[in-house]
Amino acid sequence: MSASFAPTPLRQTAVSSPFWSLIQTSMRTRTLPAIIDSLRTTGRAYALTWTKDSAPSTPHPFWDSDVYKTLEACCYYLMQTEDKDLRAFVDESVKIIQEAQHEDGYINSYYTVSGIDKRFTNLRDRHELYQLGHLCEAAVAHHTLTGTDDLLGPALKYIALVSRTFGPNEGQKRGYPGHEEIEIGLMRLYELTGRKECLDLAGFFILERGTRDEKDEIYYDHEARARGGDPYDAWSAEYRHFYAYPRDYGYQQAHMPLLEQEEIVGHSVRAMYYLTAASDYALASGNKEVLAAVKRLYASTVRTKMYVTGGIGSLERSEGFTDAFWLPDQEEGGCAYSETCASFALAVLSQRLLRHELKGEYGDVLETALYNTVLGSRAPGGGGATHGAGSGGVAFYYQNPLTTFAGHGKARSKWFDVACCPPNVAKVFGLLGELSYSYSAQSNTAAVHFFVSSECRMRLPAGEVVLKVETGLPWSGGVRLAVSAPFAVALAVRIPGWARSSYTFSGPPGVEGTVKDGYLHLPARVWTGSAGTLALDFPCVPRRVFAHPRTGKLEVALARGPLVYCAEGVDNPGLPLHSTALLLSAPLGEELAPEQEVAGIPGVPVLVAQGRAVDERAWEGGALYGDGLERAAWGEVRTVRMVPYFLRANRGGDGAMQVWLKRI
Amino acid sequence: MSASFAPTPLRQTAVSSPFWSLIQTSMRTRTLPAIIDSLRTTGRAYALTWTKDSAPSTPHPFWDSDVYKTLEACCYYLMQTEDKDLRAFVDESVKIIQEAQHEDGYINSYYTVSGIDKRFTNLRDRHELYQLGHLCEAAVAHHTLTGTDDLLGPALKYIALVSRTFGPNEGQKRGYPGHEEIEIGLMRLYELTGRKECLDLAGFFILERGTRDEKDEIYYDHEARARGGDPYDAWSAEYRHFYAYPRDYGYQQAHMPLLEQEEIVGHSVRAMYYLTAASDYALASGNKEVLAAVKRLYASTVRTKMYVTGGIGSLERSEGFTDAFWLPDQEEGGCAYSETCASFALAVLSQRLLRHELKGEYGDVLETALYNTVLGSRAPGGGGATHGAGSGGVAFYYQNPLTTFAGHGKARSKWFDVACCPPNVAKVFGLLGELSYSYSAQSNTAAVHFFVSSECRMRLPAGEVVLKVETGLPWSGGVRLAVSAPFAVALAVRIPGWARSSYTFSGPPGVEGTVKDGYLHLPARVWTGSAGTLALDFPCVPRRVFAHPRTGKLEVALARGPLVYCAEGVDNPGLPLHSTALLLSAPLGEELAPEQEVAGIPGVPVLVAQGRAVDERAWEGGALYGDGLERAAWGEVRTVRMVPYFLRANRGGDGAMQVWLKRI
Repeated sequence: MSASFAPTPLRQTAVSSPFWSLIQTSMRTRTLPAIIDSLRTTGRAYALTWTKDSAPSTPHPFWDSDVYKTLEACCYYLMQTEDKDLRAFVDESVKIIQEAQHEDGYINSYYTVSGIDKRFTNLRDRHELYQLGHLCEAAVAHHTLTGTDDLLGPALKYIALVSRTFGPNEGQKRGYPGHEEIEIGLMRLYELTGRKECLDLAGFFILERGTRDEKDEIYYDHEARARGGDPYDAWSAEYRHFYAYPRDYGYQQAHMPLLEQEEIVGHSVRAMYYLTAASDYALASGNKEVLAAVKRLYASTVRTKMYVTGGIGSLERSEGFTDAFWLPDQEEGGCAYSETCASFALAVLSQRLLRHELKGEYGDVLETALYNTVLGSRAPGGGGATHGAGSGGVAFYYQNPLTTFAGHGKARSKWFDVACCPPNVAKVFGLLGELSYSYSAQSNTAAVHFFVSSECRMRLPAGEVVLKVETGLPWSGGVRLAVSAPFAVALAVRIPGWARSSYTFSGPPGVEGTVKDGYLHLPARVWTGSAGTLALDFPCVPRRVFAHPRTGKLEVALARGPLVYCAEGVDNPGLPLHSTALLLSAPLGEELAPEQEVAGIPGVPVLVAQGRAVDERAWEGGALYGDGLERAAWGEVRTVRMVPYFLRANRGGDGAMQVWLKRI
Repeated sequence: MSASFAPTPLRQTAVSSPFWSLIQTSMRTRTLPAIIDSLRTTGRAYALTWTKDSAPSTPHPFWDSDVYKTLEACCYYLMQTEDKDLRAFVDESVKIIQEAQHEDGYINSYYTVSGIDKRFTNLRDRHELYQLGHLCEAAVAHHTLTGTDDLLGPALKYIALVSRTFGPNEGQKRGYPGHEEIEIGLMRLYELTGRKECLDLAGFFILERGTRDEKDEIYYDHEARARGGDPYDAWSAEYRHFYAYPRDYGYQQAHMPLLEQEEIVGHSVRAMYYLTAASDYALASGNKEVLAAVKRLYASTVRTKMYVTGGIGSLERSEGFTDAFWLPDQEEGGCAYSETCASFALAVLSQRLLRHELKGEYGDVLETALYNTVLGSRAPGGGGATHGAGSGGVAFYYQNPLTTFAGHGKARSKWFDVACCPPNVAKVFGLLGELSYSYSAQSNTAAVHFFVSSECRMRLPAGEVVLKVETGLPWSGGVRLAVSAPFAVALAVRIPGWARSSYTFSGPPGVEGTVKDGYLHLPARVWTGSAGTLALDFPCVPRRVFAHPRTGKLEVALARGPLVYCAEGVDNPGLPLHSTALLLSAPLGEELAPEQEVAGIPGVPVLVAQGRAVDERAWEGGALYGDGLERAAWGEVRTVRMVPYFLRANRGGDGAMQVWLKRI
């Protein structure tokens, strides 16, 4: 039997890390207020109050979900720190949602004003069930925060309607959402309430998806005909770019049933949400085939289609996956999409897989995605009283390319038409406590996955286990873990992939650890006082990272600890980054960056490498191509300075940025 | 005063080259019949016979132009060889066009059936004047072929209507086409007929384009309002992808007047057609500012935005140009568009610039574009009685990426919805005679630009000059030029860029040449018998080509003579091309390819280089990223075989193809 690990409830962990406290504070005091302000000024916050007369002429089909996600994020921060502005938004939104609910449970601004009779007729394009999924997640968070059913009640009532409408029985629609998400919401409702209805409906949505009839058609085809359209109507100018060919249902992971899928395809956020729900479903139902499919598709994702930054989905057209090993870095032309939400979802999926088993790969991916793509998608800074100016904390990336060119830098935006990314970023960093610790009753093991200076109080049937982590990560890799357990409990501590060959461990006398699948396992014992103190070190030193040759990326990236670095024009004036190769033979150095240069964040090491650019003197005269080996000659050795990727595009300069550099 | 060079009329040159005869024969006997067949089966051939009742529900706005272009191409081949099928198509089409002409001169199938009252109300999107431009070009070709006004008459009558409708005077529309082309047609009509009306209208269209009113609006804005739309209506789902932002008129080169433009932008075919017409207009009008703008934008094109294959327009979204030096090779994601028609148009523009002055760069670009992108866009083979099978001559590329991946090869297509490319390819190779030779009366100089075994009889006022070229190009670079001129005439012979440092020349005793701007100039003298025989040699040996470091493409391509080569999976089984680097220190070799392996083309040398792939053994285990220098280690030295790019994707294999390979 698999040892199922339950994340520790959020309120039981107190974060003390200076690094993360700055970020969490700025999330609460700057990021969420800015998001709420955008929800209000764009009208989203009040979409559920629309009437036919007050609605815009083209209501947006999934504006409600931005409110739900923000509401959910606010709940996480409120569980940790009271805040009257966030609380006011939560209360206001809950009231609006309650009042927007139809008699039969339905809640949706788009169909309420554009024709309630058309509801549930276009699951493929209209995000109805997607929105409900976010409502369910918000309801679970709100219940956890308040203990009330103020939002949970409406969500369950709406779910009951959906349960009657969709399913395998006579008279029910055999449909499933065009954008997965309700499955996650259902599993969270099930875990909170134990209602079998939720588990069954999640299972139906997950397993019905992509099944074909005798005419090789799927539900979206039937549905299109039923509304008087035809199965090819998504091949219109509005949607066509999502698809590689008509009825390319891989976009929605509906090209075949989950259990038959071997390769991750389609829209990357959809795909990750699907696997997240399927992972939870496998855990609750014990369905091993579903778990095997999730693990297979996860491997396809992280071993063939993930950027070194934890970004996924390299194709802009479909915001999605494309061929294995095709990972272009530049955004121009429609590549390197690497959507913030996709990395957010990959991190969440990785955490969900850690519920099934402890595998270092899951924790490594979670760490890489969070520290690099997700964290860097929000403008750094804005963390304290003295750092409140500028765009710190209140500007966002939707796409996270790994290079930008001089003269074409990429600035973060205050808001987006499709505004999924900002609230998701706020959500995930509110969940640090849950991401960091979990416990398995079956194996009586307390686990540490993600290292944040914090204190976690695990309330187990036998009593309380307190885990206290002190660490300088992401800057320095010492980890002091103080465990207090008055009864015997085993420990499992993730050894980050980047430290697997260099880490050190010392525990109380007689405590020996064994490493398995990237986790250090310490057998069950009582932990108390100095006998409960463990010291680990994950040396954070600059290192070179290479990509699998099948990517064709015969380049080198630099990393240090969990952070991927990048070279920027602002730090390397006069050096053409795109024609610079780093010397593999030269040592890598580091220097401490002045705080004022790196968004007011203390302790940031800048990496210093040696490189040579192609000598442009052989190219004087303006030819674009030429022969003669002098055209390929290297110039003198130059110093290349690099900063963490998450801090990029923050200090002016010419806009050039590169994670990967050529190598010689 | 500039020495204007007039191309030699087509009929005065007889091509004898085995290489080109095969191609021209297959163009006439396979390519054009296949195009005509597609025009008929798709209904294009009869679009001008449509009535409201017989037309499709959504008539295509520029189907007529495919007929015009094919008609024009047929005329060129018929000037050289009679062919009853081509003749029948020409006669049939001319009759249809005559009968489709409205009383006032208008000809256009789309508006005839969708509402004649709407004509000339949407120049931005509807290609009306573009179509007329192709009609004019066809009319000039048809008049040259037949000496009749059967098509010229209708074209001139339509032009008269357009001349009344558009222009700078009171009551006229100050419009210009959304897709340039009519300007080329007008200049050709002017050169044929001397009608000042044509020159003036061309000048109006060329110079009015992109001018702004006091509200910073251009004609397309006014026109949108006039038809009850708004200037932002191109920002719709149907057209949005063409533009980087609303009212991004750079797409149509209408963002500013020509004389102010410094950088080539927008849709690449539009841009090349614009410059072609502007070049001709500058020649006819003596407008030096226009010529300076054309040369400036040509330099921007070929020195910053051209692939080594002569392809241009690296962005699929807009089929157009993007940043200087951004030349990604792979099509996935929306890059490496490199449309066939854009290279066709670049070759034509290069020829037009050679009318102003002899500059090797123009001839080099013409040669590169023709031999590589344009020639390779059509399936090779199909040249003779024994090579009639398969797709030889009857399948085409629209996009010409410089790499494809294993498992994702790119096959040529029989036809396209937008079918500009096939007829343009047929056209240009029918014009070899005109592309190869020209004469300047002002400087009394006969010039050879493009080397094709052929005999050109230049009919000059003082008598006939006969130039006879014999050459083994593109395979071997010996050129024997026999000149027969009973009166004194100077000669200018282009020295290809790739042979500029290795060519040899020997002429009659006492004849010394001087090289200027890539041309060998021989002073005026009488040429006769052995005293008229010149021998040149342009050694065709394998060479390495490098790209300007600003491209970031620190790779190497191989070329030989005018041909760029590529490595294909089929020739390199088991070698991962994308992670293979060619050794700069190893010699390059060549071997003769068996004819049956290269589309039945005799004498094709295969290039043989040495390379090393990254050793994948360090990557066993499935990780996508890793550290440790062994991850970057090279494997053993392997042989890499390469074939001419124009012969690619012709012999099966796994679909992998690369022009550029890494270098060490």
